[in-house]
Amino acid sequence: MSDVAVIGASMTEFGRREAWVRELLAEAGTACLDDAGVSPEAVEHLYVSNMASGEFEGQTGVPNALAHDLAAVPAYTQRVDQTSASGGAGIYAAWQSVASGASEMTLLVGGEKMAHRTTGEATDVIASLTHPVEYKQGVTLPSFAGLTARLYLDRFDAPRESLAKVAVKNHANGVRNPHAQFQKEIDVETAMEAPMVADPLRLYDFCPITDGSAALLFCPERVAREYTDEYAVVSGVGGASDTHVVHERVDPTTMGGVVESGREAYEMADVGPGDVDVAELHDMFTILEFLQMEGLGFAPEGEAWREVERGTTEIDGEFPVNTSGGLKSKGHPLGASGVAQGYEIYSQLVGDAGDRQVEADVGLACNVGGFGNCVTTTVMEAAR
Amino acid sequence: MSDVAVIGASMTEFGRREAWVRELLAEAGTACLDDAGVSPEAVEHLYVSNMASGEFEGQTGVPNALAHDLAAVPAYTQRVDQTSASGGAGIYAAWQSVASGASEMTLLVGGEKMAHRTTGEATDVIASLTHPVEYKQGVTLPSFAGLTARLYLDRFDAPRESLAKVAVKNHANGVRNPHAQFQKEIDVETAMEAPMVADPLRLYDFCPITDGSAALLFCPERVAREYTDEYAVVSGVGGASDTHVVHERVDPTTMGGVVESGREAYEMADVGPGDVDVAELHDMFTILEFLQMEGLGFAPEGEAWREVERGTTEIDGEFPVNTSGGLKSKGHPLGASGVAQGYEIYSQLVGDAGDRQVEADVGLACNVGGFGNCVTTTVMEAAR
Repeated sequence: MSDVAVIGASMTEFGRREAWVRELLAEAGTACLDDAGVSPEAVEHLYVSNMASGEFEGQTGVPNALAHDLAAVPAYTQRVDQTSASGGAGIYAAWQSVASGASEMTLLVGGEKMAHRTTGEATDVIASLTHPVEYKQGVTLPSFAGLTARLYLDRFDAPRESLAKVAVKNHANGVRNPHAQFQKEIDVETAMEAPMVADPLRLYDFCPITDGSAALLFCPERVAREYTDEYAVVSGVGGASDTHVVHERVDPTTMGGVVESGREAYEMADVGPGDVDVAELHDMFTILEFLQMEGLGFAPEGEAWREVERGTTEIDGEFPVNTSGGLKSKGHPLGASGVAQGYEIYSQLVGDAGDRQVEADVGLACNVGGFGNCVTTTVMEAAR
Repeated sequence: MSDVAVIGASMTEFGRREAWVRELLAEAGTACLDDAGVSPEAVEHLYVSNMASGEFEGQTGVPNALAHDLAAVPAYTQRVDQTSASGGAGIYAAWQSVASGASEMTLLVGGEKMAHRTTGEATDVIASLTHPVEYKQGVTLPSFAGLTARLYLDRFDAPRESLAKVAVKNHANGVRNPHAQFQKEIDVETAMEAPMVADPLRLYDFCPITDGSAALLFCPERVAREYTDEYAVVSGVGGASDTHVVHERVDPTTMGGVVESGREAYEMADVGPGDVDVAELHDMFTILEFLQMEGLGFAPEGEAWREVERGTTEIDGEFPVNTSGGLKSKGHPLGASGVAQGYEIYSQLVGDAGDRQVEADVGLACNVGGFGNCVTTTVMEAAR
C-alpha cells in the first residue's frame, strides 16, 4: 500500500451557480484547507482539474489565479486535463506528486463553470474531445450511449427498466446529498416515459450540465498523522486509454480503459473487487454504470443489470454505488466530477457522509473521459 | 540524485506548419521513440504539454488521439497545461510519474499549433492567462516586458544595446539549429532600429508565433541502461508560482518563481549555478534572459547584461545560454517550448547537438509561464 493520505475534502453546491470557475475553485479549495486544518502556506503543489475554462469563459491560467485567491503563492501550480476524467487524472497527478517526494502537501481542486452556456454550446465544447469525423457524422457522446445501451439490452436480455432503475436509485441518493444539483426523487415510470434523447435512452438516462467544484488534500501518511487520526489512504490508483475512435473497439460493451485502470489500481492496493465496500462510478449515462460494474469486477459480464434489479447497489444494499447521487443527480461539472467522487469516498471512509453514510473500509472511484477514451480508477481505504 | 533518466528526444521543425497539432505531436512522438529505440507498446504514460488546442483549433482530447496515432493505447494519457510553461510542467509531471513508480516508460510530447491564427487572435488566447483587469487596461505581456526592461536599464545603468545583443546572439545560434524558425543572423543595429513594440523593446526583442512539437522519453535509470549507454539524468526539478497580478510584485526585476523553482532544482540535484555548463532560458522577451540569469544565480543582481556584453553567454563563451536559438529565434509554440528546451539540453549532454555542440556535463532549462506566474526549472546531467 502506498503511503499517500487524503486529510481533507470539500465540494461546493453543484448546479447553476452565479460565480466564475475561479470563484468556485477558491470556494472548494478554502473549504478543503479548513476541513483539514492546514494553512495555505503549507501547500507545496496546487493542481487544478479543469477541461475547458478557456472555451467556456475565455480565461486560462486559472491555477495561478487560484494560488493567489488561496494565498498559496509560491506553491507550484498546474492544470490537469483529461476531458471529463480531469478530476480522476488530478487524483492520479496529486498522488504522483506526493509519492514521488516532489510535494509533502498537494491540494487538488477540480471545477467547471458551464451552465451559463446553452446546451448546444456546452455540447460543442464537450464534443470537441471526440474524433472530428465521428462528430461531424452526428455520432455524439449521447449517440454512443444510445447505441451501446441498445446493444447491451439486446445482447444480455436485460429489461429497459433496469437502466431506469439506475436513474431512480441515483436520484434517491441525490436527495440525501445537500450539494447535489437535483434534490428530487423520480420513479421508474417517469424515467421510462421521459422524452427520448438517443433511443433507447431518455432524458433521465443523462447527467445534466452543471457548475461546481470539489477539492482533496494529499500528503504522506506520516504528515497526515501530525494533523489528524481521521484520514483515508490512496492505496491504489491506475489509468488507461482506449481507442480514440469509438467504432474501432472490438467489443462495444466492454470498456477497455475501465478494465485496465481497475486492474492497475487493484494491483497497487492489493485488493480485489470483493474487498470494495462502496463505489462511485461515472454514470454520465445510466448504461455506463453497468459497464463499469462489469469492467471493475463487481458483476460478471452482462449481469450488472441483475444486481440493480436485486437492489444490491442501493444505499442500503450489499454494495452501494453512487451514494452521492452520481453524475446523474449530483451533476457533472467536468473537471470537478472525479474530485467529487473522491470527496464522496473520503467522506464515507472517515464517517462524514451524513444521511448517505454506509459502512465502508474500502472505497473505489472510477472516472471516465470521453466515451471511455481515458479512465482513472482510485482505491481508497480508511486509515487503520 | 534521482534515478529518472531521459533516453530519447526529438523536435519537429518549428515555424509555420501545414499540419494540425495532433499531426505535429505524432511527428515528434514517433521520432522520439525511434531515437530511443523504444516501441510504442512500451509506453505506460503519455503526457501532452499543450496550452490551448481547444481555443486555437476547436479540438480537445488530443492526448487520446495521440495515443491512437502512436499505437500506444492503452497507455494512460493526460494533458499538462501551465500556459507558456506547459512544457516544463510536462517535464515535472513526467519526472513525477517515473519517480513515483507509477510508470516505467513515460513519453512527454509538447506542441502547439497557432500560426494559422492572426497575431491578434493568438494574442487574445495567450492574454487570457493574465489577470482580466490588467489585460482590459491594455497591460499585455509585451507591455510588462517593456515596463520591466525600462526599469532594469534605468536601475542597473545597463545600455539598451545589451538587450539587442541577446537577440543577436540567439539569432546567431538559431542559424546553427536546423529546426529553428528563423535561419537568419541579425546585427545590433538592425535590432536597435526595428519597429518599436513596447518602449524600449522593439521587434527583435520578442519571440515569434510558431507551430511545432518536441518530445522526451523518461524511464528509471535501471531501465535506461537496458536500451543505451547514452542518456541523461533529470537530477533536479522544481516549480513555483508568483503573484498572478504582476503589479503586486514587490520587486519587478526579480522573478520569484524563477528563484524558488531554481532553488528547488539545485537542492534536489545537489548542484549550484557554478556547476551548470549550459542553459536554456525562456527568452520570450530579451529582458527575461537577464532576469533568469540573475534569478538562477548565473550573474549577480543587475549584472547579467555585463555577461552578455562580455560574450560569456555566446555559444563559444564560458557559459553558453540558449544554444538552440532560444524562443527568440527557434520559435515559441507554447506547449512545445519547455520540452524543446529539454531536447536541447539532452542533445548537448549526449553529444547530439551538431553545429551547436558545447562541452557540457550539467545543463539547466527554465520555462516561464505568463510573466513569471509559474515557473519550472530542470537540471539534467550526462549519465556517468
